[in-house]
Amino acid sequence: MSETLRIGIAGLGTVGAGTLHLLNTHYELIAQRCGRPVLVTAVSARDRRKDRGLNLEAVRWFDDPVALAGDPEIDVVIELIGGADGVAKEVTETALANGKHVITANKAMIAHHGTELAHRAEEAGAVLSYEAAVCGGIPVIKTLREGLAANAISAVYGIMNGTSNFILSQMRDTGREFSEVLQEAQKLGYAEADPSFDVDGYDAAHKLAILSALAFNAQVDYAHLHVEGIREVTSVDIAFAEELGYRIKLLGIARRVDGKISQRVHPVMVKRDVPIANVEGVNNAVVAEGDFVGSILSEGAGAGAGPTASAVVADLIDIARGIRLPTFAVPASKLDAAVPCPMDEHEGGYYLRLMCLDRPGVIAGVAAALRDHQISVETLVQRGRGPGGEAVPVVITTHETNEAAMRGALAQIETLEAVLEPPRVIRIEAF
Amino acid sequence: MSETLRIGIAGLGTVGAGTLHLLNTHYELIAQRCGRPVLVTAVSARDRRKDRGLNLEAVRWFDDPVALAGDPEIDVVIELIGGADGVAKEVTETALANGKHVITANKAMIAHHGTELAHRAEEAGAVLSYEAAVCGGIPVIKTLREGLAANAISAVYGIMNGTSNFILSQMRDTGREFSEVLQEAQKLGYAEADPSFDVDGYDAAHKLAILSALAFNAQVDYAHLHVEGIREVTSVDIAFAEELGYRIKLLGIARRVDGKISQRVHPVMVKRDVPIANVEGVNNAVVAEGDFVGSILSEGAGAGAGPTASAVVADLIDIARGIRLPTFAVPASKLDAAVPCPMDEHEGGYYLRLMCLDRPGVIAGVAAALRDHQISVETLVQRGRGPGGEAVPVVITTHETNEAAMRGALAQIETLEAVLEPPRVIRIEAF
Repeated sequence: MSETLRIGIAGLGTVGAGTLHLLNTHYELIAQRCGRPVLVTAVSARDRRKDRGLNLEAVRWFDDPVALAGDPEIDVVIELIGGADGVAKEVTETALANGKHVITANKAMIAHHGTELAHRAEEAGAVLSYEAAVCGGIPVIKTLREGLAANAISAVYGIMNGTSNFILSQMRDTGREFSEVLQEAQKLGYAEADPSFDVDGYDAAHKLAILSALAFNAQVDYAHLHVEGIREVTSVDIAFAEELGYRIKLLGIARRVDGKISQRVHPVMVKRDVPIANVEGVNNAVVAEGDFVGSILSEGAGAGAGPTASAVVADLIDIARGIRLPTFAVPASKLDAAVPCPMDEHEGGYYLRLMCLDRPGVIAGVAAALRDHQISVETLVQRGRGPGGEAVPVVITTHETNEAAMRGALAQIETLEAVLEPPRVIRIEAF
Repeated sequence: MSETLRIGIAGLGTVGAGTLHLLNTHYELIAQRCGRPVLVTAVSARDRRKDRGLNLEAVRWFDDPVALAGDPEIDVVIELIGGADGVAKEVTETALANGKHVITANKAMIAHHGTELAHRAEEAGAVLSYEAAVCGGIPVIKTLREGLAANAISAVYGIMNGTSNFILSQMRDTGREFSEVLQEAQKLGYAEADPSFDVDGYDAAHKLAILSALAFNAQVDYAHLHVEGIREVTSVDIAFAEELGYRIKLLGIARRVDGKISQRVHPVMVKRDVPIANVEGVNNAVVAEGDFVGSILSEGAGAGAGPTASAVVADLIDIARGIRLPTFAVPASKLDAAVPCPMDEHEGGYYLRLMCLDRPGVIAGVAAALRDHQISVETLVQRGRGPGGEAVPVVITTHETNEAAMRGALAQIETLEAVLEPPRVIRIEAF
């Protein structure tokens, strides 16, 4: 057996404690799989006295994580502090500058500074790994970087936020509305007290930006990513989706479109029989489409101490085994500055739900607005009749059209007197 | 860029031609991802004059694949001849003996001789890779060997034969019987003229033996693998499964059971809402259960020129990138001689369908047989009434019991005069 690999962990929250626990539990197994011992020799966290259920007697304690990152007795730094900037970034930069390998679960940092950090890692001859930053325990980074490396990837998409998927699954199962199910998710610990990061799509967006860079050999481009969350999804729309043979999912989708890269996170209607439509609850799932391999789906727990620790330690085992790959699979200088595809150029089907007065001429007015923008209707459903003259839903799905055209049509529809509420719109995706 | 990696391909059938096509198509992309050119410099096949739609002018031709395997101008040999023994094995052994890395899509050879070949690779300091041998384009070997390497794996299971899954999916969708759907699958090219390898479970069994060795750090043990195919599955049982909330799938399942390893391929009833139940058509899917990561599912095309070539070239890219891992993730000498768990010790639920005369006392006799063997009934359905005294189906599902007890009960049931046909039995698996 060769030399012990000495690990420093910066940050002992849920994932940090889980990582220490895993490395203790499987010390022998990991040594066998790596051909060398892997040992945590130093940790850093805010409060030394906090009881984390861990025996930290044998490891060196650092109050300052940046000092840990620079310590000459450490070979690999695991950054589990979090946050795109600040201490986490300083720890990462310091470790790389000192020629140490860095493993991080920090999706915000990689989404915002991934390209810059890839350059720094390369200059230092060090590895920067981030499997745990994207979809927890699912080895989706490894799959894209290595498993599908023989392919040109045309698209990568999936369910990248377990909280939102749980909420949408529950809404469908129970017929309840977003706010009510969100409260339940908060009670169950599936949603944070401030749920914005999850339900407004930012968490999924960070992950998508990383996957997109890796899939397309491109510089990370979080700034041009289109993000919408699930707050506007209603039980009425979920029920109509079911009736039309669809499921509503919050998807992150990155796709090559005519030499540009489209990156977007928003609610999507997908046909009920495609694999991604059947991923339920808090699970995550990612599909990559390669020109030779076709579609490969990976599904599993996207969060939690155990799954995330599994991904952190997988990166560590790679390093201990001597695997040295560039951060985004090709040298940083070879990463293309991708041209973003703006949402106005998006092409796809649309679901519209209008709340209309049930009187002659309403459908004609709506149909005219769609015709004026060259939008072709696939299905139209008008349901019920308001006995007291109240609004009734009119549901339309369209054939493939253009986002700009759809916006034009919606503006025209909103001017119709008989249309009482702003139209609800969900994009349809055919995979 | 460093030195060109020189490849020799032995075997130019569908996969061989697909691999050459992929390497030509993505020559630049692969060179960028590997940091060095990867070039096919030699090939061998049976008939030099056959038109394969490939330009072979620039490569050296070998009539004898073993000569190719020994050629000093080749760094990596890709073995695509097939067959557990004979030429394929000779090619592999010769290449390894000459210190060359070997990539193979040959599941039979790895299932039968994997441990021995792992030793040979290790002695030679060479890599033996076989991603393409298991589930085509799905990177399931990489996922187990690296992505989930931080976990103790308790089980690995899945749909490992696309032909059988297509037939079972079609039987359910159309209500037709096995033989009819098999003919259709043969017409569509999804089944061979001699379908035995696929529908009798041997193809899945080869794959399972390989996954099992990798998952459990064990010597490959194909000999103790229990194999049943899908010929006995009827549309009646598929319909009853649906009614009971199950799907029937041909699964390969390897599991640690009390220090032993259980390996079996047979039709299984799984609850309709588990992910594996929703894998349809020719797709394959594998689930690995790790103690930290939970369940990770990987799904995609399990066969075909493109997906299989994708896996072959993924292995090649790993080698070109300098990744050197032991054949089964740990040194060959560390592979345990696993104790097999015989089927008699299998524990699980069972589905039974009996064809009985509809007369007093029949159910009592069946129930007594189950009671006599300590088997607890979960559901019992008796359907219809034969007006002319013909047999009616009696369907029973049991709580968890033991295979030996079930065999005893079945022997007793078969002696009942009112039970007209041998009982149909399908194991139920709770994932």
